[in-house]
Amino acid sequence: MEKIELEPGRVPYPMPCSLVGANVAGKPNYLAIAWFTMANPSPPHVLVVMNKVHYTNRGVKENGTFSINIPSAELAERMDYCGLVTGHKTDKSEVFETFYGRLQTAPMIKDCACNVECRLVQTVDLLKEELFIGEIMAVYSEERYLTEGVPDLRKINPILLLQSERRYAAIGADIGPAWEMGERWKRSET
Amino acid sequence: MEKIELEPGRVPYPMPCSLVGANVAGKPNYLAIAWFTMANPSPPHVLVVMNKVHYTNRGVKENGTFSINIPSAELAERMDYCGLVTGHKTDKSEVFETFYGRLQTAPMIKDCACNVECRLVQTVDLLKEELFIGEIMAVYSEERYLTEGVPDLRKINPILLLQSERRYAAIGADIGPAWEMGERWKRSET
Repeated sequence: MEKIELEPGRVPYPMPCSLVGANVAGKPNYLAIAWFTMANPSPPHVLVVMNKVHYTNRGVKENGTFSINIPSAELAERMDYCGLVTGHKTDKSEVFETFYGRLQTAPMIKDCACNVECRLVQTVDLLKEELFIGEIMAVYSEERYLTEGVPDLRKINPILLLQSERRYAAIGADIGPAWEMGERWKRSET
Repeated sequence: MEKIELEPGRVPYPMPCSLVGANVAGKPNYLAIAWFTMANPSPPHVLVVMNKVHYTNRGVKENGTFSINIPSAELAERMDYCGLVTGHKTDKSEVFETFYGRLQTAPMIKDCACNVECRLVQTVDLLKEELFIGEIMAVYSEERYLTEGVPDLRKINPILLLQSERRYAAIGADIGPAWEMGERWKRSET
């Protein structure tokens, strides 16, 4: 079939949903974001992309700390709420139960399956957005989400954002083993 | 249940799989990566995180262009292969059929459901990785992957990487409407 050229737009891919936490004016604030990725494997760093209009950005810069909280599907409504209202106008400190870890100033969400506590190491300015690169200082979870001590995505049941479709979706059918399926293809070719 | 502190490690989330394309030494080369995200909505920019050891990095910097290609599940074996072997040792130019778009120097994969053609605008050095920020110059797809002219993730059927589990997975069950579910929660609280 023929390729069609479309207008430059977003990359169509399912984005991992999270809640970024930071203390602003002495109170926890949580922002729903789906634009984040790992930035370095070891020592582990993560990168979040946040529009400059957000209230949470102020807290990330003031404290030099932030958290990434991974909600399970049953928290989808409350996560979505944290993307609909801004901390500039609405106090979101009571939407979830907050706890603090080693860094003391990065609020984390007790109800979330997994919490990632970060120290800000670099800020990159990009047009309407700020990229915050954080070193991961600790990860928190609960026994029920772990398999052999490691967070298990099938137990966490995280939320994917299908942006153009304006829907959230869960992880689905297994496709196969990573770093292994390619060997099979190679053998079938030779 | 009690929170358990784990060693700092990767954020547990399903990562969107793609193939980054660049011309190196005059030949198309494709690298499987799952660390990318949007970097600016309008004009649209994307950000890819690539370990400095990769052969593809050289081509991105030499040409100042690259592509992001979104494979459907049926390309999982060939995508995985492009993550198992390096362009330093193996010619990957024949794994897929290549086409070029407006920028002329960013090779794209004809078999992929969607192709995103980028102009490199900024490189950020981060320890073992390089972050390439690209402006999206064009998006290519086929009629069968579109709904009302927009790429449709349910038709594309992309591949998620579950890193700790070392498995690939598809998108699954619908959870609900984004930018809407939060209103429902708000109403139930008041």
